[in-house]
Amino acid sequence: MTTKEQAAVDLETAMAAAAQAAPALADSTPATRAAWLRAIADRLDADAEALIDLAARESRLTPTRLGGELVRTTFQLRLFARVVEDGGYLEATIDHADPDWPMGARPDLRRVLRPLGPAAVYAASNFPFAFSVAGGDTAAAIAAGAPVVVKAHSAHPELSRVVAAHVLAALAEAGAPPGVFALVEGREAGRALVLDPRLTVATFTGSLSGGRALFDLAASRPQPIPFYGELGSVNPVFVTEAAAAEREQEIAAGFAASLTLGVGQFCTKPGVLLVPAASSLEASIVEAVRRSAGGPMLSEPIRDGYFASLAPLAERDDVELLTGSPTAVEEPVPTLYATDASTFLRSADELLEEHFGPAALLVRYRSTDELLAVARAFPGQLTATIQGAEGDSAGGEAVGPLLELLAARAGRVLWNGWPTGVSVTYAQQHGGPYPATTAPHFTSVGTASIARFLRPVAYQDTPDALLPPALQDADPWRVPRLVDGVRTEGQPA
Amino acid sequence: MTTKEQAAVDLETAMAAAAQAAPALADSTPATRAAWLRAIADRLDADAEALIDLAARESRLTPTRLGGELVRTTFQLRLFARVVEDGGYLEATIDHADPDWPMGARPDLRRVLRPLGPAAVYAASNFPFAFSVAGGDTAAAIAAGAPVVVKAHSAHPELSRVVAAHVLAALAEAGAPPGVFALVEGREAGRALVLDPRLTVATFTGSLSGGRALFDLAASRPQPIPFYGELGSVNPVFVTEAAAAEREQEIAAGFAASLTLGVGQFCTKPGVLLVPAASSLEASIVEAVRRSAGGPMLSEPIRDGYFASLAPLAERDDVELLTGSPTAVEEPVPTLYATDASTFLRSADELLEEHFGPAALLVRYRSTDELLAVARAFPGQLTATIQGAEGDSAGGEAVGPLLELLAARAGRVLWNGWPTGVSVTYAQQHGGPYPATTAPHFTSVGTASIARFLRPVAYQDTPDALLPPALQDADPWRVPRLVDGVRTEGQPA
Repeated sequence: MTTKEQAAVDLETAMAAAAQAAPALADSTPATRAAWLRAIADRLDADAEALIDLAARESRLTPTRLGGELVRTTFQLRLFARVVEDGGYLEATIDHADPDWPMGARPDLRRVLRPLGPAAVYAASNFPFAFSVAGGDTAAAIAAGAPVVVKAHSAHPELSRVVAAHVLAALAEAGAPPGVFALVEGREAGRALVLDPRLTVATFTGSLSGGRALFDLAASRPQPIPFYGELGSVNPVFVTEAAAAEREQEIAAGFAASLTLGVGQFCTKPGVLLVPAASSLEASIVEAVRRSAGGPMLSEPIRDGYFASLAPLAERDDVELLTGSPTAVEEPVPTLYATDASTFLRSADELLEEHFGPAALLVRYRSTDELLAVARAFPGQLTATIQGAEGDSAGGEAVGPLLELLAARAGRVLWNGWPTGVSVTYAQQHGGPYPATTAPHFTSVGTASIARFLRPVAYQDTPDALLPPALQDADPWRVPRLVDGVRTEGQPA
Repeated sequence: MTTKEQAAVDLETAMAAAAQAAPALADSTPATRAAWLRAIADRLDADAEALIDLAARESRLTPTRLGGELVRTTFQLRLFARVVEDGGYLEATIDHADPDWPMGARPDLRRVLRPLGPAAVYAASNFPFAFSVAGGDTAAAIAAGAPVVVKAHSAHPELSRVVAAHVLAALAEAGAPPGVFALVEGREAGRALVLDPRLTVATFTGSLSGGRALFDLAASRPQPIPFYGELGSVNPVFVTEAAAAEREQEIAAGFAASLTLGVGQFCTKPGVLLVPAASSLEASIVEAVRRSAGGPMLSEPIRDGYFASLAPLAERDDVELLTGSPTAVEEPVPTLYATDASTFLRSADELLEEHFGPAALLVRYRSTDELLAVARAFPGQLTATIQGAEGDSAGGEAVGPLLELLAARAGRVLWNGWPTGVSVTYAQQHGGPYPATTAPHFTSVGTASIARFLRPVAYQDTPDALLPPALQDADPWRVPRLVDGVRTEGQPA
């Protein structure tokens, strides 16, 4: 068995093996890959206690939180096994030859999604399981049939190696060929990885600056490749006047909980809250946030980055510190700033910077027009939330246009919820226009995230025996297909 | 009515109107956009004779060819009307709230595709109708609900204005708001267009150098946007020994016809042909190509570019001129070069350059190993073709691995066909890894091309009245949906 000491390899070894494995993976059956994914999940579950202990030591996250995250991680591995078995993700499409096709006789054309090839996965700091070595990107890539090279995050190196050893062992025991998975470490390997000519696609979850640097490298290649960076978001929350009046304490408590969950180290942390200037909601929020705890951050560099990001706020005389502290103390404490809508609109670029930690900015609005103007000032976001009231949804004047503005800017819009907590489902969308991500068509959470590792290939007039199984007349994999423009379920075998 | 003199506007006018129109388009119903698309098709059909005359004068293509292209153009406008009405392209997905979801209780999540926003369409030179002002990209963008700004190609300026006037008139008569469509002209506008902060997506069909320059600009923006460039391809054709023996004359004639169709000015022109060295196929091909006609090219710059691209071939002493001429004569004549597989493998980078015109390179192979080695040398291609024989497909040793290699490199693989002629269907894939395109996930031909102008948005716990119609419980548009992981057809209204 691979030990954790052997789990990380040099980049050349990793990429050579991945390139070697790619054709076999492209040829592998759904049942085979589903078995690999379940084998990985089973091994991680079997070692849960030790994994959580190690993760807690390295990340300073609580065992409870990490236990939940590991459940999520093995769940998504198994969910992708089901996605692969279902086969709908292949988008199998068959157009039979048609001499009477109105634009002119058409040949037999059959289209299916195929794996792109070796994929790089840049692990995140803040989810040591779910967005790291055996996280969603790795699960989706293996499900698609793409070999994965994970660049470990430096915030949890030991855990990365132990999880990698489990993945390698599970794959070997399940009979996978070498090269399906590899772990590499270090900033230099990370840079060289995205430039490697054998790489076909890369995914990343992290900071705007780090993600943009890798995106620029991916675009600069002689042969550019898709780069799916999830870079950051301030996740604005808009509280209507009616909601503030009806649910003041509930909103204050909900916001404080979402802001401080995981010491604010979530890409979906609500970082900007629009509050009616005339309401007492602000006072209740300050109180709720004061009662909330901070805590240790994931790493020293992340703590330093958090405080550095607050410095420009602290220097402004048009932004007010309501509670907390922008300067380094032993542990960060929940911190709130406030300003008015007109200041926000004047300085949106500066005030929209993400603070990765337990800090947020309250923006006081005085009218529906101001609320909508602020909504228009946001660039691409992962999420945007409305805290509304019964009357609002039944036709309140502002809330329809507000929802439209937010849906035009965000990957996910929420009603009376809080953006932290991203369920892994079919309908999930964790993405959005830049700077939320570098690729607005795609999601990095949920079953649709498999699409990032696939590309379509059409087969024209190809003999049945040479077609991929999903396109053969007999439909041996029983996949849903679009046949001559009509949706069909998989044929019984 | 807009006259052709008024059809082209300055970029600021175009982008301001497009940005203004975007929210209304995102809100428009499928029936509305389907009516717009049909109105455009009807107007173009009604003026077909004059349009074809003008196109023939500007492009030097034959009226017969242009007539067929106009049929294709209005067909695809109407096909996209049906795609929009069907609603499957929305990928509507509903996950009801589930307290027992295995990774933890999930909220109600509903996901649908929404238009990205203002789209740039860079028209191509070689399809004055089908890949130009009212071509496939424009049809797909309007179908998606994205306002379109077309950058006219300088090879057919008058036709571009006349078609634009028709599009504008059809949209106005059908009641579309201003800003759904605009035409801009000139290299400077083209450059400024891709950098405009209001732009959300761009499509391009043209040369590798021109497309890469625009791709680089799109990636360099403070807020990068997706850039779908279709840049070029040499579309290799691999003739097996058995096929050469069985169908020598048919293959020679088919190749000559595909090579010289439209004076070789197709992105799917077969530019490299692998022939068994021991066969007499090469002699038959030379004869067939000698019997084929050249003709005038689309424009002087295209003719100059074609001959310039041949110069490096003419200078090589390891590449042999079989027929034709690499130097400018009044009109280009069909031109064939030949070399052996080992030379090709040594100089693949130089020998893989696209020659946009009636020229191709024959590569003589001596063994299956050589054939497969040559296949591995190709970067991303729009198409790759096997000319095989009965025995090959029933398990000939080379042909299975060869097809796998080609499917791993090309967007479309063909069996015993020729790559020119790209049918507009559900299963079509006109794309491929770089340099065939800058975005391997997407196609620029066929109904799936609508995806380039859409991005997913998830709605969490949103009141039914505020949801987009495709996600409402009553399913008023009757669209197919994935509900709790199960595919459903649209509910009867």
